[in-house]
Amino acid sequence: MTPNLVAGLEPPYYTAVFTSIRPDAPEGYAETSARMQEIVKGLPGFLGYEAARTPGGIGITVAYFRDLESLDAWRDNAEHQEAKRHGRKHWYESYSVHIGKVERSYGFDKG
Amino acid sequence: MTPNLVAGLEPPYYTAVFTSIRPDAPEGYAETSARMQEIVKGLPGFLGYEAARTPGGIGITVAYFRDLESLDAWRDNAEHQEAKRHGRKHWYESYSVHIGKVERSYGFDKG
Repeated sequence: MTPNLVAGLEPPYYTAVFTSIRPDAPEGYAETSARMQEIVKGLPGFLGYEAARTPGGIGITVAYFRDLESLDAWRDNAEHQEAKRHGRKHWYESYSVHIGKVERSYGFDKG
Repeated sequence: MTPNLVAGLEPPYYTAVFTSIRPDAPEGYAETSARMQEIVKGLPGFLGYEAARTPGGIGITVAYFRDLESLDAWRDNAEHQEAKRHGRKHWYESYSVHIGKVERSYGFDKG
């Protein structure tokens, strides 16, 4: 798989930054993660996401949303809420979420 | 090194999300990265950062700033600008920068 950055985002939009510390591959994580991706991709206003994890270190996911309504729909999704409860109990040492409104962005592509 | 998330951030603050695709350890990168960290940590209004990189995949760094003035000071720093020029020429396939104003954040720590 060749990784790709999310392209073509036009401000204003929102970033949901999720940073976490957890074991590299806890039981059940991959299945839940795949299901969460399936749900969020179906939400109106979801624009894409990028994820990175340093082995043994920090993981960061940035999800892009058109507006707060789509972000709230993701936050309030019942399966997502259940996954978060399970994650707090079984997977995560710690995590943080930062919801930002983006008015300025730029990019570079070697092309 | 035990990784730690940046803690104690009180909205409003700003996130500078930097996502990139580059080779894992290009020549000269580590030295420049260390120097950039030294500079940004000395800026008033810099609140901390987190970084993650999936080997062979995407890298994401999130830097936290108190206000746009401190973010602009970082953007306009001459050594930082030179490092970005060098990075575009020698290191990066692509990158993107998203500047967001955070009004809402929360976290979890197993404690």
